Amino acid sequence: MKSFFYPQSMAVVGVSTTKMNLGQIILLNNKQCGYQGRLYGVGSQAGEVAGIPVYTRIDELPEIPEVAIMVTPARTVPALLEDCGRKGIRRVVIESGGFSEFAHGDHSLEREVLDVAARHGIRFIGPNCVGTVNFDIKMMMPFAFFKDPPSGGRVAIIAQSGGVGGAYLHALPENAVAPGKFASIGNKLQLDEVDFLAYLLQDEETDVVTMYLEGFSRGRMFHDLAMGSPKPIIVQKSNRSEASAKIAQSHTTALAAGDDVVNGMFRQAAIIRVEDEGEFLDAIKIVRLPPMKGRRVAVLSRSGGHAVLSADACAKFGFDMTPFPDSFLAKLKTLYHTRVVAHQNPLDLGEIFDYTIFTGILEETLKLDDIDGVLFNHLYASTYEARMSRTFLAGVARLVERYGKPVAVAMLSDSAELLDVARSQPYPIFTSPRQAAAALDMSATYYERKVRRDNRGAPPPISLDEAGIAAVRERCRREGRIPWTDEALEVCRAAGLTPVPSWRVRRPEEAEGLAVRFPVAVKLLSREFSHKTDVGGVRLSIRTRRSLRKALEEMAERFAGSADGFLIQEMAPAGVECFVGGRRDPVFGPVVMVGLGGVFVEVFKDTAIRLAPVTGAEAADMVAELKAYPLLRGFRGRETADIPALEETVCRVSALLAAEPEITELDLNPVIVHPAGKGVSLVDARVFFSRRQPGD
Amino acid sequence: MKSFFYPQSMAVVGVSTTKMNLGQIILLNNKQCGYQGRLYGVGSQAGEVAGIPVYTRIDELPEIPEVAIMVTPARTVPALLEDCGRKGIRRVVIESGGFSEFAHGDHSLEREVLDVAARHGIRFIGPNCVGTVNFDIKMMMPFAFFKDPPSGGRVAIIAQSGGVGGAYLHALPENAVAPGKFASIGNKLQLDEVDFLAYLLQDEETDVVTMYLEGFSRGRMFHDLAMGSPKPIIVQKSNRSEASAKIAQSHTTALAAGDDVVNGMFRQAAIIRVEDEGEFLDAIKIVRLPPMKGRRVAVLSRSGGHAVLSADACAKFGFDMTPFPDSFLAKLKTLYHTRVVAHQNPLDLGEIFDYTIFTGILEETLKLDDIDGVLFNHLYASTYEARMSRTFLAGVARLVERYGKPVAVAMLSDSAELLDVARSQPYPIFTSPRQAAAALDMSATYYERKVRRDNRGAPPPISLDEAGIAAVRERCRREGRIPWTDEALEVCRAAGLTPVPSWRVRRPEEAEGLAVRFPVAVKLLSREFSHKTDVGGVRLSIRTRRSLRKALEEMAERFAGSADGFLIQEMAPAGVECFVGGRRDPVFGPVVMVGLGGVFVEVFKDTAIRLAPVTGAEAADMVAELKAYPLLRGFRGRETADIPALEETVCRVSALLAAEPEITELDLNPVIVHPAGKGVSLVDARVFFSRRQPGD
Repeated sequence: MKSFFYPQSMAVVGVSTTKMNLGQIILLNNKQCGYQGRLYGVGSQAGEVAGIPVYTRIDELPEIPEVAIMVTPARTVPALLEDCGRKGIRRVVIESGGFSEFAHGDHSLEREVLDVAARHGIRFIGPNCVGTVNFDIKMMMPFAFFKDPPSGGRVAIIAQSGGVGGAYLHALPENAVAPGKFASIGNKLQLDEVDFLAYLLQDEETDVVTMYLEGFSRGRMFHDLAMGSPKPIIVQKSNRSEASAKIAQSHTTALAAGDDVVNGMFRQAAIIRVEDEGEFLDAIKIVRLPPMKGRRVAVLSRSGGHAVLSADACAKFGFDMTPFPDSFLAKLKTLYHTRVVAHQNPLDLGEIFDYTIFTGILEETLKLDDIDGVLFNHLYASTYEARMSRTFLAGVARLVERYGKPVAVAMLSDSAELLDVARSQPYPIFTSPRQAAAALDMSATYYERKVRRDNRGAPPPISLDEAGIAAVRERCRREGRIPWTDEALEVCRAAGLTPVPSWRVRRPEEAEGLAVRFPVAVKLLSREFSHKTDVGGVRLSIRTRRSLRKALEEMAERFAGSADGFLIQEMAPAGVECFVGGRRDPVFGPVVMVGLGGVFVEVFKDTAIRLAPVTGAEAADMVAELKAYPLLRGFRGRETADIPALEETVCRVSALLAAEPEITELDLNPVIVHPAGKGVSLVDARVFFSRRQPGD
Repeated sequence: MKSFFYPQSMAVVGVSTTKMNLGQIILLNNKQCGYQGRLYGVGSQAGEVAGIPVYTRIDELPEIPEVAIMVTPARTVPALLEDCGRKGIRRVVIESGGFSEFAHGDHSLEREVLDVAARHGIRFIGPNCVGTVNFDIKMMMPFAFFKDPPSGGRVAIIAQSGGVGGAYLHALPENAVAPGKFASIGNKLQLDEVDFLAYLLQDEETDVVTMYLEGFSRGRMFHDLAMGSPKPIIVQKSNRSEASAKIAQSHTTALAAGDDVVNGMFRQAAIIRVEDEGEFLDAIKIVRLPPMKGRRVAVLSRSGGHAVLSADACAKFGFDMTPFPDSFLAKLKTLYHTRVVAHQNPLDLGEIFDYTIFTGILEETLKLDDIDGVLFNHLYASTYEARMSRTFLAGVARLVERYGKPVAVAMLSDSAELLDVARSQPYPIFTSPRQAAAALDMSATYYERKVRRDNRGAPPPISLDEAGIAAVRERCRREGRIPWTDEALEVCRAAGLTPVPSWRVRRPEEAEGLAVRFPVAVKLLSREFSHKTDVGGVRLSIRTRRSLRKALEEMAERFAGSADGFLIQEMAPAGVECFVGGRRDPVFGPVVMVGLGGVFVEVFKDTAIRLAPVTGAEAADMVAELKAYPLLRGFRGRETADIPALEETVCRVSALLAAEPEITELDLNPVIVHPAGKGVSLVDARVFFSRRQPGD
């Protein structure tokens, strides 16, 4: 991968010697910006471009270039790639578009490219991309004009779209952030986001990895890498909806992954998800400051109105505006004379016009043990205060370094002034209290998730009765059906879960001798009805043996012909009804879910999802993430539910899904969560096995 | 009010003739910017400022100025106001701070000011404000320096905070929007947001009214005015949280109103609520384009990646990306030659570099009957395309006017270029696909709400049995208690609602002869327990007369001493449990609410709220607003619930609250909504009457 960022020599294939074309632009960019490696062109006419020799055939090149860049029409690519292979070139960037993103499902050209590459051991980026840039060595593969590239910094950008990546690349220096490495990876036919992430995580010149992705080629691997990342990873993942999936498919051939899984995975791996360019830049700015290690914030504001807006924003992001201690207020009085009766957090600095006092107050605030970060609203008139504001910002930078806490400065002035500050000052600025608060929230959230991730421990060891599961699976396969409820519960039991006692009977009279404890429920088992409640196939609260017989007889009569049997199940006491489930995601592999059960889950979409298996800490985070968490925690005098038991259920289900690739989907619904110490009751389950025979 | 915007003459009280002070700045601003009225100063030393005469006493002024502006310390204000009154001045702006916003609850100075003003018939703005600006006549009262004020436009800004208002005032010209009138209204001791809104709604020079408010002085009146507004009203209402309430109180003495009521009222009155400066500007930009009359959007994009982002944003805002008809695609082929197999919405224009083709495609898109608006992503390099982009924008403006549909252009280029375009081009621009989509959503939402508001009709005539309500009220007052459940249901019956049949008995034996229809429930009536379920005071599903007697006897024994009686109530069949309620809001008066009942309403906070009374159309909008609406509409094969019956309940409760000011709170919970055509069952109610005797 290093060759793509530090090539000693590059050949551009598709260079015109007579008129400006994409190939020419690439050569000129590198020449003019000061790339020190050797450059060659290949095109239909021999000659030269700005002193760079252009050959008509790849085999004529005077050396084996470390990288070849192709900007020729798609149909010419396989043959040219073959030429590259024969020449001994092992790294290629295929910038040409016109592959499956245009052909709607025709992958023949792509297959040909993959074949040629495999035959020659070629690693390639693209097609349909603009390649890489390394600002450190002024190496640039994109075919758009570059002027005065900034010096190399420590932020890397990987972008699946050249347009979006290019826009972000331009935006960084306007926010005093120097980009280091850039790669546009297009259709990701061979090298994908995982290859680039792996490289950048170990790259010593990169501190922050940012990405624009429309899809994941290897989602599970991406997750595994991110779980061990010491560097912040900031990702804008688009292509979230059905509508965008259509266009993304034709743009970079990206397939949509379920956005809920992406969210869960990001949370689990402490990947910072951003929604648009603004958040993308804000995230880069804030992760370069010390992290906000808690949620206690101080707001200092030169405008009362902006203090109110800040308080609203802090409340929205769940910050705690800790009252200032008396010692702090006493200290304030030594810094300036005030008419104000009582100071509070937010602190309105409206009376003060002396900049040294601002810095003094900020320092006293940062010294406070119970403050984790500061939001400072700096409203000023550029006409009079432009220079002082720059000096002030430099002072803020020094204090932030000294005290190791973030200060998000909302600069409120005219746009030209703000643009100049953003470009010229190394300390990052935000332009509204809300934006500053949002950035602090990113910092605090990243810190919380990273700490949880790094201290998550190992998934609890769970012994599975694999033979028991295999027996159910084989029986169902043989009989060409999905497992009955009792078989599904048996699979759960094989993972160490304890469903409520139940008995399957084929005929009413079989129930006579059973040692059931009343009350019980009776459930229809039938391959014809997947939702037994809807057809009246469930009878609850049966309290006597006589009623049980009657219920069974009635159901046997009613479902004569379609019933495959009946399940008699002891009734569980009441509790909070949740569901726990999981499935095999095509992009991310086994995932586990938890949520409130019943119809509400579908209406309120209140579920938490993670890649399986999860550790106890991760299961706890899942449950705490639910909007319905207050219901479990004990809401308005209700009893606290047995949250640890629910978490354990999540862990076991996740272990089961991770260990048994034959299970494609599993649902426990409801999982009745009883008061603390009283466990959960598993009363219904559905399991789907892969239809494929093992070894298929 | 007109005097505050078009004064013929102004006197500034608090002018120094020797050094720069606030009073001097006000005089200099007006002089230098070209205000044509007569100016006077009043200060401790006579003399002049830039040729403007300064007197030592108000009574020395050579005429009665139309407006006096005070910038003297708070404690001097009452006496100076007295002087103004004696002189005959009837319009005053009190810019001085230091009133109750500093004194924490001490209102004596404010009362004095109100007294003096009342005695002399003085109308005043403030205190603690920066007064008004009228850009049309270059009249400016704020004490901050003004340089080159823009020419008067048709957007008015009313701001409760001088800092926030000032920041917005500066931001408008940077977005090619000319402000017309500005007022900073501070503590709103006398003139408030309603006075300004009323003036601006009839002001012929104002097209758009924008506001920054921290609280409402007359919330109900504000609503009533807004309900009839032909002009867009854009409001940023801050002070939403407990934390901000504290600081707002000390900033402009604003009291927080429940944010849920504010949201409901804004929705009802088609007021556009914005969250921050960015949305504030976006709203102004988009309401000046033709409205988006539906949610069918076409996305045209010069970058594939930005097309994907646009599709995500459009999905998020509930837009429908209607497929393009074949005739359109055929037309496209006449406009440019393309390699692309199939065109779709979003349309990727990545291949095209000819600007006239952009305009051509845009025009064809606007012609389509089933497109209500367009999002255009214009990604360009300022180095080469700056001029063409400006010409293109002018073309967009012409097309928008011709076809009467909005086009939100996301300009994607470097910041300096974008700032220049924003300042110099009259056609509004946005800077990301998401922002452009959000603006279109504002337009569509405003249009939907305005149409609903303007066609809402009158609240249905509901006849109230006022004597019946008064009887319950007087009985409860006499006995010093809140109404029993059956009395609360009686109040509902007086508003034409039909609770399920119920009987109150004091002793078990009273139940013997009652013609109840089983099953029934028994509910404890007791002044000691407000939540009867929590203490076991409810027995459900009693199916026989014998069980009823037993249940009554058990409860009589258990609650001997605390029971005031028992309610026997026929059981209602099952359905979707909702609640309908209302209360008398201190800021907005009677409000009505609807939501999902039970514990979920508190966890998911899924309620809709409006000012009472509501019309049928408004009640329908409330129900449709609920996240749980799919449950009522029939979710996954469930039956549709009787939504009209629920809506009627909402209307009747709202009418009851509006007509009976003595009712401070009313809750119907649950309201069981049965399948379509089968109505609702009202099984429980609580009513609170004002403790105050009428006439108190």
